[in-house]
Amino acid sequence: MSFLERIDECNTHDLAAFRPFEVEGVRYGWVRHDLAERLAGFGEVFAVSANAVVLSPALRDFAARSEAVERAVRVLESEGRIVGRRDEFYPVTQAFAALPVLQIERAAVPHFGVLAFGVHMNAFVRTRNGLQMWVARRAADKPTFPGMLDNAVAGGQPIGIGLRENLLKECHEEAGIPPEIAQRATSVGALSYCKETRNGLKPDVLYCFDLELPADFVPSNTDGEVEEFLLWPITRVAETVRDSQAFKPNCNLVIIDFLVRHGVIPPEHRDYLPICLGLRR
Amino acid sequence: MSFLERIDECNTHDLAAFRPFEVEGVRYGWVRHDLAERLAGFGEVFAVSANAVVLSPALRDFAARSEAVERAVRVLESEGRIVGRRDEFYPVTQAFAALPVLQIERAAVPHFGVLAFGVHMNAFVRTRNGLQMWVARRAADKPTFPGMLDNAVAGGQPIGIGLRENLLKECHEEAGIPPEIAQRATSVGALSYCKETRNGLKPDVLYCFDLELPADFVPSNTDGEVEEFLLWPITRVAETVRDSQAFKPNCNLVIIDFLVRHGVIPPEHRDYLPICLGLRR
Repeated sequence: MSFLERIDECNTHDLAAFRPFEVEGVRYGWVRHDLAERLAGFGEVFAVSANAVVLSPALRDFAARSEAVERAVRVLESEGRIVGRRDEFYPVTQAFAALPVLQIERAAVPHFGVLAFGVHMNAFVRTRNGLQMWVARRAADKPTFPGMLDNAVAGGQPIGIGLRENLLKECHEEAGIPPEIAQRATSVGALSYCKETRNGLKPDVLYCFDLELPADFVPSNTDGEVEEFLLWPITRVAETVRDSQAFKPNCNLVIIDFLVRHGVIPPEHRDYLPICLGLRR
Repeated sequence: MSFLERIDECNTHDLAAFRPFEVEGVRYGWVRHDLAERLAGFGEVFAVSANAVVLSPALRDFAARSEAVERAVRVLESEGRIVGRRDEFYPVTQAFAALPVLQIERAAVPHFGVLAFGVHMNAFVRTRNGLQMWVARRAADKPTFPGMLDNAVAGGQPIGIGLRENLLKECHEEAGIPPEIAQRATSVGALSYCKETRNGLKPDVLYCFDLELPADFVPSNTDGEVEEFLLWPITRVAETVRDSQAFKPNCNLVIIDFLVRHGVIPPEHRDYLPICLGLRR
């Protein structure tokens, strides 16, 4: 078992199974061929060819595009092709800082293979015996990855809210971390991966944060999404990532990056450079 | 001016000007066409075709390959094609942790376009007014990049010495940092770039370290390679990197990575993801 295996698991995909999803001549996503064939039935919204799914150029602005796609998504939901509506909208964009060309229901995002953003925070404590990390166990009734291990705080990035604002909200909801502590979190970089799932393609960007917690602070979940918090020596966290699939897959990447940045994975490690490169594609 | 410009400057190259340098069927470097034509004159060492420079398969082990290439390098030096001998040998390898197939004089490394490794350390101080960084100014009589700004400690990685051992040696020589302080340095990741220079191609890997120095410690050079040390607010360091070419080019990358990891370049920065990806190729 190896750290590289964890990275590879998040980057398993075959683009031959997809065709580009384009808006105004620019590719914003990837649609699986069977869904593309179905989208051909929405002739006022999508122009579908063997090579691409193109959003109708008659839809000229953010509002018109968003409304038209939302109507199509509602039909696809009624057919059972898209499930798990969150009533949370994601931007369709090429970069977080760019203006989105439309917005789309979160549950539809992987079906259109659109770039999605998330905030992930590792919470750690410095002790006389070295670093310890707070690990979350996801609630058994979560629809995705129930019972699996997770970063202390993590969440998708909806449209219309800042990254740090989102992080502070998730700190409160997931771990009961008050704003005066949460605001000490340091942004430490961005990771990217591209994973094929049952629902489509996930080309994701994870904005990573570190928060050193006071030794006497114990996280406590407030929204029912976390079953328990575990304070583990960093070596146990590292071994669990390396030797098991106990963590939700993309959380492994955030922890591996932490291990590199804090010197727990040393530069002499045989896979050091492939690990550093593999976390950002 | 932008951080991405600094990254691009370290990645300017045109592989069409080079042909692969191969040992035992594996590419280890890139040789410029004019040097390749000259290497054809060393028929017992190199087999040169239009598509590659291949080390003679009759040279079967590390010692035989190293001796044969060293003899050729000495001739190329006598012809003025390779200058600046350091009497320091670098491994020819595909990864730092792999066994090298031969060793080669440091001054010849870019001429053969071989992967080279270095250690770079940012030394910083936390103050009530925020982060400050120690910046070195290279001596005016250095053969390379005289008078330019530099990381507090940096050095190439010769064969036969560990990364941390090398770092501690450089900490002493360049900045007068004693081992009991230098050993607190944290390894924080590896960066890579590929830059075409007058001497050939430099596909380099930089192993990065952070050292938080006590507020009352002042670095002092002991080997004559650093003219002065400057303690700058991190914002001044960031602006100097972004808006000028005052730093030795590859040192910019190490500082940009520091700025990302310490939250000085925030995730909302318009180039955040391209910066994170661009530092590792």
